[in-house]
Parts: sequence; C-alpha cells; structure tokens
Amino acid sequence: MAHTLRATLETFENTYPERDYQIEIVCPEFTSLCPKTGQPDFGTLTFTYTPDRLCVELKSLKLYLQHYRNEGIFYENITNRILDDLVSVVQPRRMKLVAAFSARGGITTTVTAVYPA
Amino acid sequence: MAHTLRATLETFENTYPERDYQIEIVCPEFTSLCPKTGQPDFGTLTFTYTPDRLCVELKSLKLYLQHYRNEGIFYENITNRILDDLVSVVQPRRMKLVAAFSARGGITTTVTAVYPA
Amino acid sequence: MAHTLRATLETFENTYPERDYQIEIVCPEFTSLCPKTGQPDFGTLTFTYTPDRLCVELKSLKLYLQHYRNEGIFYENITNRILDDLVSVVQPRRMKLVAAFSARGGITTTVTAVYPA
Amino acid sequence: MAHTLRATLETFENTYPERDYQIEIVCPEFTSLCPKTGQPDFGTLTFTYTPDRLCVELKSLKLYLQHYRNEGIFYENITNRILDDLVSVVQPRRMKLVAAFSARGGITTTVTAVYPA
Amino acid sequence: MAHTLRATLETFENTYPERDYQIEIVCPEFTSLCPKTGQPDFGTLTFTYTPDRLCVELKSLKLYLQHYRNEGIFYENITNRILDDLVSVVQPRRMKLVAAFSARGGITTTVTAVYPA
Amino acid sequence: MAHTLRATLETFENTYPERDYQIEIVCPEFTSLCPKTGQPDFGTLTFTYTPDRLCVELKSLKLYLQHYRNEGIFYENITNRILDDLVSVVQPRRMKLVAAFSARGGITTTVTAVYPA
Amino acid sequence: MAHTLRATLETFENTYPERDYQIEIVCPEFTSLCPKTGQPDFGTLTFTYTPDRLCVELKSLKLYLQHYRNEGIFYENITNRILDDLVSVVQPRRMKLVAAFSARGGITTTVTAVYPA
Amino acid sequence: MAHTLRATLETFENTYPERDYQIEIVCPEFTSLCPKTGQPDFGTLTFTYTPDRLCVELKSLKLYLQHYRNEGIFYENITNRILDDLVSVVQPRRMKLVAAFSARGGITTTVTAVYPA
Amino acid sequence: MAHTLRATLETFENTYPERDYQIEIVCPEFTSLCPKTGQPDFGTLTFTYTPDRLCVELKSLKLYLQHYRNEGIFYENITNRILDDLVSVVQPRRMKLVAAFSARGGITTTVTAVYPA
Amino acid sequence: MAHTLRATLETFENTYPERDYQIEIVCPEFTSLCPKTGQPDFGTLTFTYTPDRLCVELKSLKLYLQHYRNEGIFYENITNRILDDLVSVVQPRRMKLVAAFSARGGITTTVTAVYPA
Repeated sequence: MAHTLRATLETFENTYPERDYQIEIVCPEFTSLCPKTGQPDFGTLTFTYTPDRLCVELKSLKLYLQHYRNEGIFYENITNRILDDLVSVVQPRRMKLVAAFSARGGITTTVTAVYPA
Repeated sequence: MAHTLRATLETFENTYPERDYQIEIVCPEFTSLCPKTGQPDFGTLTFTYTPDRLCVELKSLKLYLQHYRNEGIFYENITNRILDDLVSVVQPRRMKLVAAFSARGGITTTVTAVYPA
Repeated sequence: MAHTLRATLETFENTYPERDYQIEIVCPEFTSLCPKTGQPDFGTLTFTYTPDRLCVELKSLKLYLQHYRNEGIFYENITNRILDDLVSVVQPRRMKLVAAFSARGGITTTVTAVYPA
Repeated sequence: MAHTLRATLETFENTYPERDYQIEIVCPEFTSLCPKTGQPDFGTLTFTYTPDRLCVELKSLKLYLQHYRNEGIFYENITNRILDDLVSVVQPRRMKLVAAFSARGGITTTVTAVYPA
Repeated sequence: MAHTLRATLETFENTYPERDYQIEIVCPEFTSLCPKTGQPDFGTLTFTYTPDRLCVELKSLKLYLQHYRNEGIFYENITNRILDDLVSVVQPRRMKLVAAFSARGGITTTVTAVYPA
Repeated sequence: MAHTLRATLETFENTYPERDYQIEIVCPEFTSLCPKTGQPDFGTLTFTYTPDRLCVELKSLKLYLQHYRNEGIFYENITNRILDDLVSVVQPRRMKLVAAFSARGGITTTVTAVYPA
Repeated sequence: MAHTLRATLETFENTYPERDYQIEIVCPEFTSLCPKTGQPDFGTLTFTYTPDRLCVELKSLKLYLQHYRNEGIFYENITNRILDDLVSVVQPRRMKLVAAFSARGGITTTVTAVYPA
Repeated sequence: MAHTLRATLETFENTYPERDYQIEIVCPEFTSLCPKTGQPDFGTLTFTYTPDRLCVELKSLKLYLQHYRNEGIFYENITNRILDDLVSVVQPRRMKLVAAFSARGGITTTVTAVYPA
Repeated sequence: MAHTLRATLETFENTYPERDYQIEIVCPEFTSLCPKTGQPDFGTLTFTYTPDRLCVELKSLKLYLQHYRNEGIFYENITNRILDDLVSVVQPRRMKLVAAFSARGGITTTVTAVYPA
Repeated sequence: MAHTLRATLETFENTYPERDYQIEIVCPEFTSLCPKTGQPDFGTLTFTYTPDRLCVELKSLKLYLQHYRNEGIFYENITNRILDDLVSVVQPRRMKLVAAFSARGGITTTVTAVYPA
C-alpha cells in the first residue's frame, strides 16, 4: 500500500528556494490502530523541514494522514514510514518528524526521526 | 504592490550602533486571506533583529502589517516577503522572522526565515 | 443501529446504592466523522452521574464509544444519543454529558445535555 | 445593512427539542475596525445557548462574523447587535454572548449580554 | 482634587439601555505612590458594570487613572474613591471594582468594592 | 479486613469544637490494585471535613491508606469504604471524599462521596 | 503568650465604613515549627475580611506572623488562633482565614475558618 | 534477583536499523519502597534511547517496573540498575534515564544516567 | 542627567571574587514615559551578571530605576543607557540586560543588550 | 561557625562511581534572615552534581539547611558558602547551586555558582 498512499501527497513550488528557511507543521489529530490489540492510538505529529524546490500541500498531507485511521501499525513504523514518504515526495534539504502518542497502560511514547540521518 | 508597500516602513537612527544588541518585536494580531479559499488567516509574527544604523519604527510596522488584512497570500510567501521588506528598509546586521499561524483543518503551521541565510 | 449499539454497554451492580454519590468519567479520545464532509471530528466526552442500582463498566463504555469512529454524525446528535443510551442502560439518578469538540474553521463547539432535563 | 446581514445566518432543525440542552460556540478569530481610529480590533466571541426548534449552522455563523472584518463598530454595539441577530434567526430558549476584546492602550474590555434579559 | 479629577471622566450614550448587560474593563497598568514611604505601588483594576444611560469612554478612563501616578494614596482609598468617581459620572445600574496590588514585604492585597452596597 | 484496618486510624481532640471550620487533606500518592487485572491503580484522594470533637491524625491516615497498596479493589469501593472508615472513626459534622484516578485505556475516573448524604 | 502577641497587631481607621467592601490579604511566607518533630512547616495564609471601623495595618500583621517562626504549633491551632486574634483586634463584620500548608509525607493540608461561624 | 528480573524484559526487532532515530518512553507511575523507612516512594522514569537492532517491548517494560513496587531500593540505585538492565537487554546505541522522584521532607530528587558514559 | 543619576547606584564588595558566579536580578516594576506621546510605558528588566570586585546594592538599584518614572525615553535607549550605567559602576566581568515592555498597539517589544559586546 | 556546621553534612558511598551520572536536589523551603533588616528571606535551592565516591545524605542536607533559619546572611554568601560546604564534604566531580530568592521590594534575585569554576 505504501507507494499508492505516498502518491496522494501533493506539493507546490517553493518560491524562495534561494533561502534556507524552515516550515513547522503540527498535526494533533493523528489516529491509527494498534496492530496487536486493534485498539485506537492517538498522537500529535510535528514535521519540521527546510524545503528545497517543493513544499508539501497541507490539505493533501491531512488526507494522507487520515489513511492511517483504520490501519494497524506500530509507533516506530508510523514515524519512520511517514518520514520516508514525505522525504521521497517533498525532497527537502532537512526534515524531522516528532510523533508523540497518548498514554497506554500509564506509559507515553514519543518517536523522533531525522532526515538526513 | 511590494515596492510601494515597502516604502511605508519607517526607521529611526540607532543611537547605540557600536553595540551589537537585539530587539524582539511580537505582533500577535496579523491577519491576511487564504489565496485559495478567500478565508481569513490569523498569525503571530515575531521579529528578532540586531540593528546596524537603523531601527524600525513600531507604528509604521503596525500599519505596514495591516496592509495584508485583505490580501490573499500563502504562509510561506508572507514570511519571506515581509522579511525581505524589513531587511531592505532597516538593513539590520541580522534578522529572524517567526510566523506562527492558527490552526486550519486541525493543522498548525509556523514558518521561520533568517537573514543572512 | 442505535439499539444494537446500546446493547454493547455493560453494567455492574452499585455496592453503595444507599449513598447518593457521583462518578465522573473523562474520555478524551472520542472521534467520529462529519456527516457533511466525511472529515474526522475529535472530542472529549465527560460523563458525570449518580448511580442508582447500576454502574457503567468502563471497558464496555470504551468499546461503545469506538463504534462512532467511522460513523457520520453531528455534534448535537452525538451528545444527545450517547446520553440517551447511557441513561437507558445504566438508569442513573442523574447524568450529565459534556462533549467538547476540537476546533473546525477556527470555531470550537461544546454540547452539554443533562438527565433528567 | 443589519437585516441583510442577518439573513446570511442559516439554521438546521434541532432533533432533540424535548430536551433543554446547551450548545457553546467559541469564535476566537473575530475582527472588526474601531469606528474612531479605523484600527483593527480583535476578539473572542463565546455563544452559549439552549436551542428551541433551531440550531445555528456553524459555517454560516463563521461567514456572518467575517462580514464585520472591514466594518467600523464599537465593542458594545458588536455584542448587542450580534446577539440580537442570532436571537432573531435562531429563536433560542436562552442565549448568552461574551465578547472579549484584546488590549488597547493597556486596557482590556469584555462585554456580556444575555437573552432574555 | 477629587471633584476636578472626576470631571475628566467622559461618557458616551448607551445605545442598548433596554438590555441589562455587563461591561468588564481590566486595567493592569495602574500605579500610584505609598503615602507612608513614597514608594511606587502597582496594581490591576477590574471594573465590572451594567450601564444605564451612559458608558465610560475608555481613553478618558485611562487618562483619569494616570492622574494617580504621582499621588500618595492607600489601597483602600484608591478602590473606594475610584468607585465613587465612576459611579458618580457613569451612574450605572451596578458596578464592582476589584483592585489587586502587587506584593509588598511578601504580602499581596486585593480590595473589592461594589455599588450599590 | 475492614474493621481491623479502620482501627489503625488515630485521632486527636479538636481544640476549637465551638467553631464550624473545615480541614482539607490532599493525598496524591494513593495506589491500589485493579481486582480484575491485578495491575496497579494510582489516584489522588482529597478529604474535606468539618471536625466535631475529633480530628484525624495525618500520619495514621497515611499508614491507613498504604494498606491498600497491594489490595485489589474497585474505584467505587475505594471511595465509599474509605469515607465510611473515616466517618466512623472521626465522626465529623460533614465529610467529602474526592478520589481522582489516573487514566486507564485513555479514560479517567473520579468518584465523589459525601457524608451525610 | 497569646494576649501579648495579639497586642502587637495595629489598626487604622476605615475611611469608608458606610460601604460593605472586602479586603483580601495573601501572606505566602508563613512558617512555624511542628510541635511533634520540631521540623519547620511552611504555608500561605489568606485573610478575606469586611472592615467595620478598623482595618489591619499590613506591617504589623507581617511582624505578628513572624512571631510564629520559632513556635511549635499544630495547623488547626495556627488557623483558629490567628483568626481569633485578628477578629479580636480588628472587629471586622466578617473574616475568613484559609491556611494552606506545604506537603508533609506526601500529604497537603488546608484549614479554613470563618467569623462569624 | 537482578538477573532474573532483567530476563523479564522483552524486545522486538527494530525495522529501521539503518536510521539513527530516537524513542522516548515516559513512565509516571513508578513506585518502590524506601530501604530505610519502608515508606513508598513515587517517581516518573523517562527513557530516551536510539535503538540498534532491538526495541524494548512496552508491556514487558511496564511489568518489569512493577517488580520494584514492594522492593526497598535507593533513588541512585533504582536509576543505575534499571539503566543497566535496559542497556543489557536492548543494547541500544545510546540511552538516557531520568528518574524524577516526588518530594520527601520538602526535598525533591532527580537522578539522570546516560549510556555510554 | 545621566552622570548624576549613575552616581546614585551603590555597590558592596564581592566576598567571593575568586569564583566566576552569576547573579540574576528581575525588576518587574519598571515604568517610564513615551517621549512621543507622554503615555506611561511598563516593563520588566532582567539583569544577569558575573561580579568582579563589586556587587550592585539592590535598594540603590530600585531607587535608581525609579528615577525613570517621569522621564520620556525610548525602549532602545532605556536598555542601553541602564546597561552602560550598571557596567560603569559595578564593573562586572559580564552583564546582560533584557528589557521586556508591555504591549502597545497590540505589539510587544523586548530589547537585549550584553557587555562586553 | 562554618566548620562546625559543615560537619553536620553526612554522606553515603556512591555505588556506581564508574558512571558519570547526575543528581538534582531541589529544596524549596530554605529560609534565613536578612543581615540588614532582620526580616526573613525565603528561597529555593537547587543542587545539581555528579558524585565521585560520595553522595550527600538527604536528611542531613535538610538539617544542615535548617541551621540558616535564624542566621543573618546575604544572598551571595548563602550561595557561595553552601556550595563550598557541599563541595568540601561530598567532593563531587562537578556541582552547581542555583539559589532563587523570593521578591523583596518588587525585585527578585537568583544566584548561581558552579564547582569547579
């Protein structure tokens, strides 16, 4: 599914490519399913990136993230796969994704991945 | 329009040019229009700069920002264009602009640009 | 669907029925779909009730609320229908439901319903 | 203008008219102009009402409030006129409007009006 | 001085006298002098009133409060005298003044007066 | 076990029985076990009471609450049983117990019981 | 000691005795000793009173409270004795004392007493 | 006991070993006993690590931490021993453990240990 | 006026000159006048310095700052002139002054200057 | 007095000397007397240190700090002398002491000292 899903991400041209500037996008309404229990997970995804020639279009990002609503996927895979998809489509100079999930069993998990490593 | 608008920014002489000091100006009442939907956008602009020979005059900055009230413009362009205008008129040693916009579709965006790059 | 769904709510016996005491249950992970746009809605449901002979079993309440995850329903109907279901099954002396939804188009809505009216 | 503007407010049928319940709507992105100085004012409007046979449709409320964006009007008149318009169109059992405006000259003003008086 | 000072307060006509509504005005930049030590005092004055035929004009209120900047006056007298002046000029249906002063010697004082008693 | 446990609560004489005053005691370190799963539960217990002839001794209250550390007991029973024990030993004029438990499965529960009912 | 200590409280004349107004005094730097262990206790005392013919002088209140710095006294007695002293000297129409002490053994205590009962 | 306890920690394979990313796990419900007094201690443990080939399984971590519930152990030893156990089983590239304990005798302690040193 | 004013600052000997330590002084009650409008400005000044042979005496600093109460002076000049005065009198190893002023026209300004540059 | 007082600090052996880890101890209940006025001062002391072969025993630290309760001493001397005493007895690899005192005359002071310099 990954490649089809990735194709739903749209971009627009960066009109200031000569400047190395930063865009932060906070998505507090991410939800997916736990692959073990089928129970819903909830989280806040924060993207911070420096665009090169493309910027991610916000509405397509919102719809892309909604595809996870009924998918079973682990926290670590959510973070790494979404970062891979964004990097592949937007080809930024740098991108960080911080995924902060709500508590389960009294324990809270946040996964952070950065491109390039 | 850009050059005419830029001309409305006024400056006054920096009386301590021998010291490398910093001025932070927070403008929480910025509003413009989304060029796609025509809907109002709202944001907080934070300028941080080190003056060289000129400082920006606050009232002219306020009036300059009000010119965007009924203009359709994307977040990334707001940030870069306003930074360009301020740098052009004030010619600071350094300047950063952080533009934090309120949530749209559950997603919040903040754009940060710095001069010199 | 309403009656079948209602049947998934389970109860246990109130062991202190002679005392008029109060139970508050906060569920910050409620999500449903907007019937107009199909977009996800998110909210926090807060139940406050005085049990008579029955208390609501928390795990069944959680599963009951998860049935709304992919259902299109308006804020006002969510609140009134869920209150009706809980009152019907738990038969409390009093119950209040406050449903606070996250912002849409910059506007936040909270619906409050009480039994008995 | 008032009657034309009022006509832009839309309603939908309250499906639970037999219950006396409450809807709170918070609009933090209200802006108008000061009739004296022409400077923008900013405020948060909070409506709290008990519907009778009609509920206010949120998107039309948002568009209705945007009509004040370039209109010069005093705080007290904003609050009373908007309450009058909402009451006239929605015909609620009760409605309160709290309008909290941002500081001007170091002074913050909040106006609260209630229907019926 | 009291009567001369009082005369500086200006009013405008209440355009909704038939409705019993409330106006809250928060002034966080009040300062006067301690009559014992001559040291500056700082406080936040919060007026809450229901206008009858007149509303207080905000700019004149600001200037009126600035007259206390270099006057020696006790907390209790500030609160009662300012309430008396406002009531005398605005003739409201009801008015409350809460004056919260910053800490002196590790002790914080707030004085609250209401009209009519 | 209940009666033996209750006997561990100690009191001291109220030296101001002629005044109807109030004592609030907040215990944020309560922990017990879920009788279904054996998993630990955590909560904050807040007692608010008006003493008659006796006050509860704080150290004995702390030790009394620690007896629940390894006991399996439901939220509703914790609240009602502890209130009964305190009322029985301290014989207050009034007592309220608010027991706020930490989230389980994303759901937070608070139980409030009052004496006399 | 009580009567000697009480004598250190000073008053000044209430210049607005015809109005029933309220004075709140917050003293966050109260400290005394635990009579059992000799360990220091810390608390915030909040007085709220309506003066009749006298107001308490703040500096004398501060010095009065400092007399408890090296005295062993229980929370309940601190609250009731200080309220009695203030009432005796100031003879207010109404007075409330809320004494909030810092945590001991993970438990926090607040004592509230009111005059007249 | 240490080695047996350590054996209860389970792992799963890191599916993104080629990326140097970070996982933060916050456990606010840690409790153990003071070895001197037998009194319960409470704390929040925050693990931050970069996985190599293995990730720690959250449920096994939760159960592992619950083994300390009735064990007497000092703050410094809790932190170092738990870090040692996690490092031994998970073999991360880097791991930090911050253990923040609740106040005792008005004093709060936080211990931080890092691997590799 | 500057040199006379500077002379009011008093110092005391640093008794630990062999250690490079830091003193932070926060003054939230600074007020001066706007030289353009004559209106009062309010701000919080935060000094952070490493003393060499002298420390600034706090009471003289308070009185020194009060001299600006009725003086018209711009934000940038306040910050630089006060830093110059302190550096001249105290001769610290390092000193930073952060001057955060309250909002004017919806815009907040903070000026930061450091010695040596 | 200093050397006798220092002798009251007790230590215990660091059982993980091979690891360079950090212990933070927050003491919000420090109080001493102003040597000029005799008035009580209040502050929060935060120690952050890396133990070598010894750790400071918390109860002895608490009692050591209580010796300052009735001693007249300036803020700068409190901080430097207590750091010296701790360093002398515990012989840590590194230690920082941040002493934040409550406001006096509207001014707040924080002193920070570090070992080794």
